[in-house]
Amino acid sequence: MTIAFIGLGIMGSPMAANLVKAGYDVVGYDVSAERVAELEARGGKGAAGVAEAVADADVVITMLPDSPQVEEVAPVVVAHGASGLIYLDMSTIRPDTSRWVAREAAAKGVRALDAPVSGGERGAVDGTLSIMVGGDPEDFAAARPVLGALGTTIVHVGPPGAGQTVKAANQLVVGGIYGLVAEAIVLLEASGVDPVAGLDVLAGGLAGSRILDIKRHTMIRREFAPGFRIDLHHKDMGIAVAAAREAGVALPLTAQVAQLVAAARAQGHGSLDHSALLKVVERFNG
Amino acid sequence: MTIAFIGLGIMGSPMAANLVKAGYDVVGYDVSAERVAELEARGGKGAAGVAEAVADADVVITMLPDSPQVEEVAPVVVAHGASGLIYLDMSTIRPDTSRWVAREAAAKGVRALDAPVSGGERGAVDGTLSIMVGGDPEDFAAARPVLGALGTTIVHVGPPGAGQTVKAANQLVVGGIYGLVAEAIVLLEASGVDPVAGLDVLAGGLAGSRILDIKRHTMIRREFAPGFRIDLHHKDMGIAVAAAREAGVALPLTAQVAQLVAAARAQGHGSLDHSALLKVVERFNG
Amino acid sequence: MTIAFIGLGIMGSPMAANLVKAGYDVVGYDVSAERVAELEARGGKGAAGVAEAVADADVVITMLPDSPQVEEVAPVVVAHGASGLIYLDMSTIRPDTSRWVAREAAAKGVRALDAPVSGGERGAVDGTLSIMVGGDPEDFAAARPVLGALGTTIVHVGPPGAGQTVKAANQLVVGGIYGLVAEAIVLLEASGVDPVAGLDVLAGGLAGSRILDIKRHTMIRREFAPGFRIDLHHKDMGIAVAAAREAGVALPLTAQVAQLVAAARAQGHGSLDHSALLKVVERFNG
Amino acid sequence: MTIAFIGLGIMGSPMAANLVKAGYDVVGYDVSAERVAELEARGGKGAAGVAEAVADADVVITMLPDSPQVEEVAPVVVAHGASGLIYLDMSTIRPDTSRWVAREAAAKGVRALDAPVSGGERGAVDGTLSIMVGGDPEDFAAARPVLGALGTTIVHVGPPGAGQTVKAANQLVVGGIYGLVAEAIVLLEASGVDPVAGLDVLAGGLAGSRILDIKRHTMIRREFAPGFRIDLHHKDMGIAVAAAREAGVALPLTAQVAQLVAAARAQGHGSLDHSALLKVVERFNG
Repeated sequence: MTIAFIGLGIMGSPMAANLVKAGYDVVGYDVSAERVAELEARGGKGAAGVAEAVADADVVITMLPDSPQVEEVAPVVVAHGASGLIYLDMSTIRPDTSRWVAREAAAKGVRALDAPVSGGERGAVDGTLSIMVGGDPEDFAAARPVLGALGTTIVHVGPPGAGQTVKAANQLVVGGIYGLVAEAIVLLEASGVDPVAGLDVLAGGLAGSRILDIKRHTMIRREFAPGFRIDLHHKDMGIAVAAAREAGVALPLTAQVAQLVAAARAQGHGSLDHSALLKVVERFNG
Repeated sequence: MTIAFIGLGIMGSPMAANLVKAGYDVVGYDVSAERVAELEARGGKGAAGVAEAVADADVVITMLPDSPQVEEVAPVVVAHGASGLIYLDMSTIRPDTSRWVAREAAAKGVRALDAPVSGGERGAVDGTLSIMVGGDPEDFAAARPVLGALGTTIVHVGPPGAGQTVKAANQLVVGGIYGLVAEAIVLLEASGVDPVAGLDVLAGGLAGSRILDIKRHTMIRREFAPGFRIDLHHKDMGIAVAAAREAGVALPLTAQVAQLVAAARAQGHGSLDHSALLKVVERFNG
Repeated sequence: MTIAFIGLGIMGSPMAANLVKAGYDVVGYDVSAERVAELEARGGKGAAGVAEAVADADVVITMLPDSPQVEEVAPVVVAHGASGLIYLDMSTIRPDTSRWVAREAAAKGVRALDAPVSGGERGAVDGTLSIMVGGDPEDFAAARPVLGALGTTIVHVGPPGAGQTVKAANQLVVGGIYGLVAEAIVLLEASGVDPVAGLDVLAGGLAGSRILDIKRHTMIRREFAPGFRIDLHHKDMGIAVAAAREAGVALPLTAQVAQLVAAARAQGHGSLDHSALLKVVERFNG
Repeated sequence: MTIAFIGLGIMGSPMAANLVKAGYDVVGYDVSAERVAELEARGGKGAAGVAEAVADADVVITMLPDSPQVEEVAPVVVAHGASGLIYLDMSTIRPDTSRWVAREAAAKGVRALDAPVSGGERGAVDGTLSIMVGGDPEDFAAARPVLGALGTTIVHVGPPGAGQTVKAANQLVVGGIYGLVAEAIVLLEASGVDPVAGLDVLAGGLAGSRILDIKRHTMIRREFAPGFRIDLHHKDMGIAVAAAREAGVALPLTAQVAQLVAAARAQGHGSLDHSALLKVVERFNG
């Protein structure tokens, strides 16, 4: 079985490698020839363009930076893919773009699914990503084995675009918890309270969260090496705000979190870990 | 060893009972004679007033609704308590009130600690409260055995008032996560995504939290039986906002969460569980 | 001198009529044949499409609902317009779309200006619009006489897109003042204070504003006949949020105002005047 | 007719002087003996304490920094004032404190009114203050002539506390407009738009306000000499937030404005004019 993999960046490269390891014939393409060569070195096959990569594939996966890239690549996939092709777009993009891709694909007999991931570079390398999938349940069932080589939590969450909506919901909650923990730290420290002891208590009770578990000590020590970069979270909050607008709902906390992340970027912290929201709350106070 | 316990409400009553069970001589007082009788039925002793309850006590515990009640009762404790007395105020009140109590107490040789709790009625009954303690470390060490009969996580977090500050930090994070989860649910549902599947994914990743673990299903089913009432969380957000103001820090998310909780109350949901923030976000959208 | 006018809606129709009155030869086009007929009845000339309308024009004006329509029409204007043509896009759209139009136009020798307006239907009919213009200063000078037939305040505010940015700034301030006045009314009424007397005082002092001057009595009486519809202000807040994002700045109040307007729409008040933000603040409180 | 004036600070001093000029016998007291001497130099009479100042007065005016000072002074006024005395508290304090003063006063036959002012030092010197009065309408009528020597806009707005509520409403709107104008400036400048031309357009249309009229040029030039200090506005936003809480209403924009003002103070701008909210929005963005 042949899988075309388009977009061999920080996430895509190890994901493609995991597919090779799982025994699939992987044909890869990226705008960077170097990355294509890297895939070949790992046992994949390189292609000269999207059309070539896609031509003989049973499954196509795209892992691209944002909506505009998907809007460029998806029509090529659909135009050159075989009828009945399964097309997994694993990029994190706006839900309405995913719905557009699904419609365009369906018109040509291509079975598109949106399948954004969480878990970061670590999860991509280890094959332990969480994958949230939108699209037709039968197409999901057909794609399930391939996804099984990439992640451990693989959930079908609804119709086309639903995967992206769940990813957006994930990112607004993650950003919000970082903001809340940042405010808690600033309050504790300004009040002369030991933040380590204080956050230990919070982590053990109803305020507890994955973020408190794994990030509270680095946050208190102001260690913000990424991790997941502010720039990417800024992109994702833009998607969350756009998704809310598209769905016709007003989300006041989400909007405020988006501003905190935007401020982090405006303050030059785009390359830091998203826990650097703490720097924004601190700077707000002096 | 004799412990005076002032304030035998929903929390205080089972806490006093746990002290009796642990072998302490407990002398209780409450404005409600009925509650005093209840303590007597459980093996405690009743007193006719604060002064009487406190007179022969080695340790005094107060568990009162809010700052004004502590401002009434604390001077009586200090005036009638023996020198060297340990005074644990376990009410959730403003940090600056706790600091005032500590100063008044110190002037009379009374060793005051602020020791608010989290864990709710369940934790009070089971003796599994989390207790965050502010005050002198030696006084904390002396009080530790008594607190051990009431809770399982008992942490000294700093000087007088520090316990209250940590409690405030806890409540702002808890309220904030409820608000974020509420916005996530509204976004998912408005987008035609199954919220159960969606929140399952969130709970398993970086967005995961105690609240998602134990409340996501009841929230999606709109079951808001308390639990911890909106009215109490509204009081606590008032403390958090006041504590931030007192500490001279601006906390934008905290301020917004406080408005969501205030709105829940204004909408008549004061007696519902704090997860009913979902009703506020829903009403905001129709 | 011949002016092509594309988009003869509530705003465009009276604007085109004012140009006829001012002595210009006006060739109009709209997707609605009825509206084209209306322009002909007022002394203009109808065209069968954008290309035809534009062919012999010295100046082209477009007055369209939003960015997507401008993205459709502008290339046709540029393709069929004479070199040296002045092209005034008076639609309210995203600044980056206006910059794109200016670039596309410049490549073909067309001199594009973005020239959004404020002042509403009344201002369009009376020829008293405020017009904020972005683009080349010489092109502005050349277009100035035509704009003089449409408005009374006509200001060149900067390079391409600048007119849209100023319009966005205008709308965020307008939306924000409505929100603040709404909160003031809710506070006064909930406190048992006569809102008429209260707002009279505010209107006379540093809190005074055009909005308090002309809308406070209708707001207090809950009269929300448009005026400027919530739906349009929602569109404009979307532009403001997008413009801030594009400019790389975080604007926390703007983001919150956008949510209040989005909530007004979600609550079904899209056809009411934007002063109906009061209904959102009220509903938030019961 | 004798007027006792307690609190001869930046506002109180010129107000007392205006009463002297208007022909009243003014007996003044302040914790600073120097200020009392200053009043004597202007034709007033000094007193050694509140009780002495109040003893023979027909009208008592207090102009104090905040609620705690009023809570100290008001009982002395009530205890030593003649029955039937008119007591005007012109301090800006919490509405609930004013209601408490009115109740205490009424119990002793003293007719208390809350009468906070706006217009600043300039208005105090020129006798052009706006005065918003809460209390009994007959008492207001009796106090009207005295107030006429201090201000030009004098409005009875409701029962005890209503004056304070209107003042709070005024300050939340003023703070909010400063925040909105600051965000508009930041957006314009970040987008390469001339802020002078841009705000000129805003000032002339529906976005127009007293603040844009008198402060836009100084804001653009970053001139923040007070004016009305951030520290005082911070105090007033605290009152607004407390008044909303007391009235049981949630005000999301007000809460956010309060955070911006608190941030200005935390950033060390307490002594600058409140238009310095611009510095907060700028710092948020770099």
